[in-house]
Amino acid sequence: MTLAEAIFAPRRIALVGASADPAKLTARAQIHLRRHGFDGALFPVNPNAGEIMGERAYASIADIPGPIDHAFILLGPDRAITAVEDCAAKGIPVATVLADGFAEAGPEGAARQERLLAAARAGGVRLMGPNCIGVINVAARIALSVNAVLAMEPPLPPGRTAVLSHSGSMIGAMLSRGAARGLGYSVLAATGNEADLGVVELLALLADDAGTDTILLFLETIRDPIGLREAAAKAHAAGKAVLAYKLGRSDAGAAMAVSHTGAVAGSDAAVDALLGVSGIARLDSFEALIEAPPLFAHARPIAGPRRAVSVLTTTGGAAALVVDRLGLAGIAAPVVRDMTLAGTEPARIAAELAAMDADAGTDAVLAVIGSSAQFRPETSVAGVVAAADRMTKPLAVFLAPDAPESTRHLAARGIACFRTPEAAADAIRALLAWRPPSPAIDAGDVTVAAAALAAARGAVLDEAEARAVFAALGVPLAPAHLITDLAGLAGIPWAIEYPVALKAVSAALPHKTDAGGVVLNVPDRGALRHAARDMIARFRDTALAGLLIAPMQRGVGEVLLGFRRDPQAGPVVVLGAGGVLAELLPPPVVRAAPLSRAEAEAMVAGAPLAQLHGFRGRPAGDLAALADAVVAFSRIAALANVAEAEINPLLVKPAGEGVVALDALVVRG
Amino acid sequence: MTLAEAIFAPRRIALVGASADPAKLTARAQIHLRRHGFDGALFPVNPNAGEIMGERAYASIADIPGPIDHAFILLGPDRAITAVEDCAAKGIPVATVLADGFAEAGPEGAARQERLLAAARAGGVRLMGPNCIGVINVAARIALSVNAVLAMEPPLPPGRTAVLSHSGSMIGAMLSRGAARGLGYSVLAATGNEADLGVVELLALLADDAGTDTILLFLETIRDPIGLREAAAKAHAAGKAVLAYKLGRSDAGAAMAVSHTGAVAGSDAAVDALLGVSGIARLDSFEALIEAPPLFAHARPIAGPRRAVSVLTTTGGAAALVVDRLGLAGIAAPVVRDMTLAGTEPARIAAELAAMDADAGTDAVLAVIGSSAQFRPETSVAGVVAAADRMTKPLAVFLAPDAPESTRHLAARGIACFRTPEAAADAIRALLAWRPPSPAIDAGDVTVAAAALAAARGAVLDEAEARAVFAALGVPLAPAHLITDLAGLAGIPWAIEYPVALKAVSAALPHKTDAGGVVLNVPDRGALRHAARDMIARFRDTALAGLLIAPMQRGVGEVLLGFRRDPQAGPVVVLGAGGVLAELLPPPVVRAAPLSRAEAEAMVAGAPLAQLHGFRGRPAGDLAALADAVVAFSRIAALANVAEAEINPLLVKPAGEGVVALDALVVRG
Repeated sequence: MTLAEAIFAPRRIALVGASADPAKLTARAQIHLRRHGFDGALFPVNPNAGEIMGERAYASIADIPGPIDHAFILLGPDRAITAVEDCAAKGIPVATVLADGFAEAGPEGAARQERLLAAARAGGVRLMGPNCIGVINVAARIALSVNAVLAMEPPLPPGRTAVLSHSGSMIGAMLSRGAARGLGYSVLAATGNEADLGVVELLALLADDAGTDTILLFLETIRDPIGLREAAAKAHAAGKAVLAYKLGRSDAGAAMAVSHTGAVAGSDAAVDALLGVSGIARLDSFEALIEAPPLFAHARPIAGPRRAVSVLTTTGGAAALVVDRLGLAGIAAPVVRDMTLAGTEPARIAAELAAMDADAGTDAVLAVIGSSAQFRPETSVAGVVAAADRMTKPLAVFLAPDAPESTRHLAARGIACFRTPEAAADAIRALLAWRPPSPAIDAGDVTVAAAALAAARGAVLDEAEARAVFAALGVPLAPAHLITDLAGLAGIPWAIEYPVALKAVSAALPHKTDAGGVVLNVPDRGALRHAARDMIARFRDTALAGLLIAPMQRGVGEVLLGFRRDPQAGPVVVLGAGGVLAELLPPPVVRAAPLSRAEAEAMVAGAPLAQLHGFRGRPAGDLAALADAVVAFSRIAALANVAEAEINPLLVKPAGEGVVALDALVVRG
Repeated sequence: MTLAEAIFAPRRIALVGASADPAKLTARAQIHLRRHGFDGALFPVNPNAGEIMGERAYASIADIPGPIDHAFILLGPDRAITAVEDCAAKGIPVATVLADGFAEAGPEGAARQERLLAAARAGGVRLMGPNCIGVINVAARIALSVNAVLAMEPPLPPGRTAVLSHSGSMIGAMLSRGAARGLGYSVLAATGNEADLGVVELLALLADDAGTDTILLFLETIRDPIGLREAAAKAHAAGKAVLAYKLGRSDAGAAMAVSHTGAVAGSDAAVDALLGVSGIARLDSFEALIEAPPLFAHARPIAGPRRAVSVLTTTGGAAALVVDRLGLAGIAAPVVRDMTLAGTEPARIAAELAAMDADAGTDAVLAVIGSSAQFRPETSVAGVVAAADRMTKPLAVFLAPDAPESTRHLAARGIACFRTPEAAADAIRALLAWRPPSPAIDAGDVTVAAAALAAARGAVLDEAEARAVFAALGVPLAPAHLITDLAGLAGIPWAIEYPVALKAVSAALPHKTDAGGVVLNVPDRGALRHAARDMIARFRDTALAGLLIAPMQRGVGEVLLGFRRDPQAGPVVVLGAGGVLAELLPPPVVRAAPLSRAEAEAMVAGAPLAQLHGFRGRPAGDLAALADAVVAFSRIAALANVAEAEINPLLVKPAGEGVVALDALVVRG
């Protein structure tokens, strides 16, 4: 039995701590399994009962005859640890732990989770949870879960969409909302605290699942960004689309989401960047996550989307709702065909949809159906159904009235149907923004940079030390001279070009401009010596490593390049306006690091850097050199002990003249 | 019979052009009226039928015995005009015209609409439409409409929410979607092309409707912004909340929306400002428009909202979806109470909701109900129902699963229930953003400014002429001297403070900086004479009215003040960053003009003017003086023949030192 089978398709299940009282949560798994048609073997474990709801009960795990594929441990947190040890002794490959009171419950719970994991690892047991309500396999009729949604009438609606969710209750919401729309699922797994098995590993397993076309992720956090990229790439290679709804778009939501599972909040922009390079389509609305799967099933990201949708409508007013919302996302609807006058007979609608499908300027087709969807469910969407099979482009349907029968009719034929204009527009936006997974970028050889880093002294590198790291990575630096003879000021070059900038070099001055550690536009050698003496006096109580002297540089504009390791998304580069504009302009853009040259170009194009695009008659900046610098800078991600880094400003010169870093900051973590 | 009765509650109705063929659109009104229980008198007019579906038919309007309250004209566009003349001859007070082919159909249609309106005006007939599918009065059982939604099973769901919509088909969508949620309506009227009666006048009539608490507007355009403000104020004074969904948030949506009805697109920011001062709560999503009425019924705008919501949930995961989205709107959820452990018995939930209601830091309360809403509709929301009657704060409910019974159960008790986290957050956002209508601001005496305007020559005023207008309005201007002796340069004052700015004065140079018509920082009298000669030479082919000489000014930052008449929202002022930053920073804010001092203060506080708030150690700007200048500038709205105006830049000095306009532009229209 493979790991995937033990998790999703066990035939022999132990229910450890099963209750004989059907009102109790701990009785639910057995009730649900039998009610939804599980025909394998169940082994309730309960020392106080000889039999539970018609199944023979066992006093201990050890007492169960024969092998067990999957143990669902329904005991309290401390007893669950012992039970995992018993599972190990019995050779059970997978245990799901229901109890909470682990990492989501403070330091004591975190320590308990460590013990639980250690017991599992020591005994070779793979763990789901803790704080996990279980797994549902619809096709195999395995409702191995205490999820309240399983009070639904059997059978659960089958489908080819899998769900992985940090939240168990959202699995219930998705099952019930999907069912109301005629949308079913293949498997649904809550992952809880993800002490061992989590969304990443389950996603990689589902990539191989023949019963699944599309995989939905309901994410409260991301614990393993590199693993997520790899698993998503595997799913993509297997022809499966991965869609995600990720909590934490606002700080308030982020804090609440992670409080659940003991994770750490990160930056939503960083998460967005990670999902983007992972080839995961991110939905903005929960409604769209539920309704979008048919739009993505068997679809591949559109190469070079024109960001244009053709719209057919049987009702003028309703189409405008979707078009208006698509417009906010920068998606045009150059063709809107109102069939009210032409006629809404199925053949006409099918012919029009076929013509739209053939239009080279169209990425996707939207059909909007009016009141007929409410009163003549089959005929109103017959034209859409007739056209759908032969269409090569994605097709979405928005129904203007409340029309559940038409919704289910379309769902049964695998056609994406949206109940709200908002969800329709969100799903189309996500579809057109969807890109294939980017291969992980190799940072190349960073041994010289690593040596430069190793040669530095403190946790915060001084500017000279940081310059050495960036130089080794290939970031262009403004020429500068380091003067370390602070007593005699020996070494000021005679041949330097004035005016110059004079800067204090000290790891104690990461924000040296604010501290008075920078003097600009020093006009000549005399003034330089004078300014240097002044600065040495000003920082007499600071450990100065030296002074940097650098000819003043001119350019088109200044940008900020930053690097940090996001708690959820991992290493990221940020690019935004530098200098005094930084606080006034839109926030910088964020991308997963390291970046390829193509990714860096896209990042530069998307950054809030209007001042570099030939603004008010000034020359345009050297955006190609900026992209090169972003690539070189992003290689710092490969230096594992760099926590953050920044170049602010990086001066961008006119096109063809390059860029130069005017400052450098590296912090080890 | 009042106008409102003739429109919404006619007892004797003529159906002009009624068909005896039930398959035809023109037969529908009669079918719908009788099917939905109209018990007044119907008079089909059709020269080819003696009887139609059991009602005696008449060959002409003139043949109908006795008075008629309302004629529904179902004829084609040209015959509709004749029918309106017949209505006038018969003394019928209101006629609804179904036909399209009027203002929405190009210049020929627009001319036809003029003829239609002239016929109505000449004969004293008030007109609904043209391009109007009719009116539905649910309580009075008057389905005077060809709307396809009336194929619904009678009775239509009654309620205390009225709907006014430019789009007839969206009335169908709202009726069917409302019905699915247990939400009903009082009256629903499509307004079509609004040649005569439109949303504005119907809104004013519904303000007096005893059967209506809340009025929903589905707007494709706004034709009478001042009228809308007045009507909304009347509704507010009558204790009724007005909610709007307005198409045209994106340019694409705006173009499509107005193409329907022959209107002109405006700026969405201007519309937003107009709705705001009108006391109309704008919903962002169509779903929220349908679900929000119970949240607003009997509610008043919250004075000084803390932008904080208390959240009770029976399921942790689902509450985070709403909290996350509220956070994006800047609304906090400082109290989130997960009842999973405390217990979800109705009494506990009711007690917790009461405590939240009593919390002074809370504007509104959100209850999130999990899977129990699906399986135990009544008990799951019993606690909410028990608490709701005694609560003084707005209460919204979000149901995590698909739970139509719970939805209807809450709706029946007048409790706002949302099916999606997106709609719940949108409605709460709109509620907290909702303000009472602002009284229309009196621009005061503008006779001096009008005289200055009248004294100017062309359509575009030169800077000296425009300065005179702004000076009369009370806008502080930088001192300047106008030199009109271009041959001898007589009149350059001896006592002026250098450096100065020198500017060409010409109506032909509205963008004089780009044209070389401005020289800054002229250091002394000699340089000034030299620069003046240069400028006169440069513009030898331009009609120069003179040169302006003004001492250079220093300040904290520059802002742009603009005025224009939006095609939909009417006169507006825009305020944003001035000078070189203008193109880089977020777009300016827009407000309806003229503004009160309080409105101007709020506008200044909300504008993208971070550089005036003590940015990077600079002094803060004189925001009070800026607000005064906005008020004075906004008075230009009262000069009816000013099409647009701009001060760019207005220099803001440090707090206490005022503001001065450094440039002035006025364009007559």
